[in-house]
Amino acid sequence: MFVFEVPGHAYYVVLTSGNLATSQSILHRIEHDLQSPNTAESLATMGDMSDAARYVGQIGAGIKNFYSHELKQGANFDCSVILGGQIQGKPHEIFLIYPEGNFIQSSPYVPFLQIGEIKYGKPILDRIINENTSLERAARCAMVSLDSTTRSNLTVAPPFDLLIYETGTFRASHRARMELNSPYYAELRKCWGEGLKSVFDQLPLFDWELPPGP
Amino acid sequence: MFVFEVPGHAYYVVLTSGNLATSQSILHRIEHDLQSPNTAESLATMGDMSDAARYVGQIGAGIKNFYSHELKQGANFDCSVILGGQIQGKPHEIFLIYPEGNFIQSSPYVPFLQIGEIKYGKPILDRIINENTSLERAARCAMVSLDSTTRSNLTVAPPFDLLIYETGTFRASHRARMELNSPYYAELRKCWGEGLKSVFDQLPLFDWELPPGP
Repeated sequence: MFVFEVPGHAYYVVLTSGNLATSQSILHRIEHDLQSPNTAESLATMGDMSDAARYVGQIGAGIKNFYSHELKQGANFDCSVILGGQIQGKPHEIFLIYPEGNFIQSSPYVPFLQIGEIKYGKPILDRIINENTSLERAARCAMVSLDSTTRSNLTVAPPFDLLIYETGTFRASHRARMELNSPYYAELRKCWGEGLKSVFDQLPLFDWELPPGP
Repeated sequence: MFVFEVPGHAYYVVLTSGNLATSQSILHRIEHDLQSPNTAESLATMGDMSDAARYVGQIGAGIKNFYSHELKQGANFDCSVILGGQIQGKPHEIFLIYPEGNFIQSSPYVPFLQIGEIKYGKPILDRIINENTSLERAARCAMVSLDSTTRSNLTVAPPFDLLIYETGTFRASHRARMELNSPYYAELRKCWGEGLKSVFDQLPLFDWELPPGP
């Protein structure tokens, strides 16, 4: 998780998944553009969040195309990005940017976005999160979702970066890095695992398991 | 789900996922071989379950190769198969057969096999099922797993076929087709959904959510 603050103008948070070299190149380019006073565009020049998504997407697609087409290399250079944040005078927004550079936005009907190993952890998000979910509840659900993913795909593991942004604040309300042995995450894992097993144990029995009636 | 009984010799259960034309061709070929008295091999001639997995895998890979290579068609003809059952005098076994015809077997360390849209429903299987899980508990967990999958991928839906086989019986102990409005499935969905939400609501709060101490 990478935060880019443009004092007096904007607050951005970037998450990446996929090819790590592409991910780092995107971040270096964002940083470089921000440091270059004469650059045509950077996160400091964006008029709105969708403009920023277009900018980040073009960087990613450009890197992918450079290695795939110009250098004709056969590997997978794809990198997906989540970009969230707010620009002064505009609403907060969050985008999922595809490796091809195009992007989608969250909405009341699509209240969360995921990148990377998304499927294992999606069912609990589908059950809990809607447009009215509090930020804390959503953050807790994201932790449970990632915990399920770590159990089913051993290549996914903590630390997990968590950041809560409240509209109009232009700073993180809360930011935490959860390690496997972080007290909160350890307690959450324990409560969720035990709770799930308890619910499972109370599920209705098949009729052939029931004791015979009178 | 397709059951092939060879009286006095074997009991087989077949599940398929992937290309439906390939799936149906595999099943037709299995049936045709069983009906042909002079066929070189069929499910009636298998010496053990891994031989049967090899036989079914070769049929599937042959169909895939026919369309892909002989007819040079570009579509995805892959079909994955789960084959379980028992041959007289041998232990019960279960195999996951890949579209390429090779296969893996369940074991105490891999106590369940999945085909098709597997990821959404895997976390609950990972939490509940181990080598000592009862057949009813495993069946219940499979239902919960499929229910989670239907919620996260709308292209997956009931009916779900359920069959419980106990070693040495050469018949189904229990067999059911669960529809969305089947009483057991409807009750299971309700209990699981409500239970999950209740467990989620009782998860520990972040420290900034807690009331200030004395």
